[in-house]
Amino acid sequence: MKKAIGIDFGGTSVKPGVVLDGKIVEFAERIPTRSHEGAESLLAAVLGAVEELRAKHPEVCALGAGLPGIVDSVQGRVGELTNVPGWKDVCLTKLLEERTGLPAAIDNDANAMTYAEWLYGAGRDAVNVVCVTLGTGVGGGLILDGKLFRGSQLGAGEIGQMTIDPHGVRGHYGNFGALEKYVGNNQIGERAQQLYREAGLTKSSEECDPLALQNAADGGDAIARKVWAEVGFNLGITLCDIVWLLNPDRIVLGGGVARAGEYVFGPIRELIRERTMRIFHERLEIVPAALGNDAGIIGSAALALEKATAAARA
Amino acid sequence: MKKAIGIDFGGTSVKPGVVLDGKIVEFAERIPTRSHEGAESLLAAVLGAVEELRAKHPEVCALGAGLPGIVDSVQGRVGELTNVPGWKDVCLTKLLEERTGLPAAIDNDANAMTYAEWLYGAGRDAVNVVCVTLGTGVGGGLILDGKLFRGSQLGAGEIGQMTIDPHGVRGHYGNFGALEKYVGNNQIGERAQQLYREAGLTKSSEECDPLALQNAADGGDAIARKVWAEVGFNLGITLCDIVWLLNPDRIVLGGGVARAGEYVFGPIRELIRERTMRIFHERLEIVPAALGNDAGIIGSAALALEKATAAARA
Repeated sequence: MKKAIGIDFGGTSVKPGVVLDGKIVEFAERIPTRSHEGAESLLAAVLGAVEELRAKHPEVCALGAGLPGIVDSVQGRVGELTNVPGWKDVCLTKLLEERTGLPAAIDNDANAMTYAEWLYGAGRDAVNVVCVTLGTGVGGGLILDGKLFRGSQLGAGEIGQMTIDPHGVRGHYGNFGALEKYVGNNQIGERAQQLYREAGLTKSSEECDPLALQNAADGGDAIARKVWAEVGFNLGITLCDIVWLLNPDRIVLGGGVARAGEYVFGPIRELIRERTMRIFHERLEIVPAALGNDAGIIGSAALALEKATAAARA
Repeated sequence: MKKAIGIDFGGTSVKPGVVLDGKIVEFAERIPTRSHEGAESLLAAVLGAVEELRAKHPEVCALGAGLPGIVDSVQGRVGELTNVPGWKDVCLTKLLEERTGLPAAIDNDANAMTYAEWLYGAGRDAVNVVCVTLGTGVGGGLILDGKLFRGSQLGAGEIGQMTIDPHGVRGHYGNFGALEKYVGNNQIGERAQQLYREAGLTKSSEECDPLALQNAADGGDAIARKVWAEVGFNLGITLCDIVWLLNPDRIVLGGGVARAGEYVFGPIRELIRERTMRIFHERLEIVPAALGNDAGIIGSAALALEKATAAARA
């Protein structure tokens, strides 16, 4: 097996690591996004970390990066990057290749996570996998017929923008009543605060973050359980539609919300069983992601290796 | 190019034809489904028609059939067939091959239509195509990355079962508030009758079928136009979700409802423009199907040829 470096560009930090056979064998120090004044300064720090990793692992033969938002993985271009002012239409693949001499690949972070979970995690051995990433935003990725599916403009997998209520409020990306507006971390917290308030209780937003709500549910808190059941219902509605449309054999849910376990997975499974035909759900597995925060690094390294191998073959 | 026979199994009749290069060069007489007492009698009539076609076109080298419902195209098995009592788990591919000596293939009728529109019709030259068939029921098919996508249990493309209203009434296949329950021919007719009634007008169901409503809309009838706008809105909501999920470059709408033209296509285009990001809609074409009722024969013939060619290559 070959070593590659994966770089996970997040909203708060950039995390590079060396990957061998689906495992991170060396992490570089996290690079806080906001500590840099612009794209050039951030990229210099990232490249410095890459050089340090390569000094320890000279056999590294490819370099991949996963980034939030719309990423043009074919042209290798990234229009903008959250929390990085001055990042404007960066030809990232070319820049990485020129500055490191390694073959490079970039992709959307949800695609990197999906690819990692499919090759090495909770999506293993499945043919059609739907991955959902649950956090402040809700994203997703698709493995279809055993290949990462990107869509005509490389935008596929925007599960968080699918409609829960056609007459709901308008979301950040234009759709009305989009899933993200119901199951994003902030919306879950606000909904919990609202239900507590209606019950005469005042809770801080910290007391209503996913982890706190999971603990509350574990402790028997009826309101926390109700919040999770609602989240499960809303996720279930969207997943139901995806099941009717794509007939997948595996659904993988990652991110903080997925850690709420059966409080969320239970209602989802029940809803899909109730609302789809048996042939669609009897062999469908709905499972939590297995690679956690490492998925971005592992997936972008794997995508870079795959691209380098395909290029060498051609 | 090679000749193949395509057989379109419909709810009311079975239509066989000889296809050359995406065109039907000879039709057999339609075989009314209800005129036969059971599966054996119907199949004998179909095989008789096939023999007549082959006598005129001895160079026919493959045989395909498109059927409604869940069709196991891999095992070649069809569980049941609408309006044909006694049809129970027929191993149709094997039966067709044994009785004709030709290589045979079977598929879902929406997949056959999708494949035909993609190869020879309104989906031509696109890479990711979403086809919707609008009639009493609402079905669909998907071309993804230039291949027919069938899903893990060969059930993919059930666009008519996707959710419009999570709290709506339950449909035939188990989902609540499914698209089919809003834009199926009967539902459109009932909605029109309801709106006319509210306006103090009594209309028969014949006066509210898709063609009559299209003529009424052409004549300036405000109620007919309102009905079509609602159909467009509901179709648009589901298509919007498919656009966010799959980022296709072509959407093809077929069947009676699609013939209402801009009364339906206008609202769909507007809604998708309004509710998705520019990158998802600026190059997306939303077009009516081009092959009409011939698509089933053409598509099943093409699928049979493709399968025979792949088998010869292997």
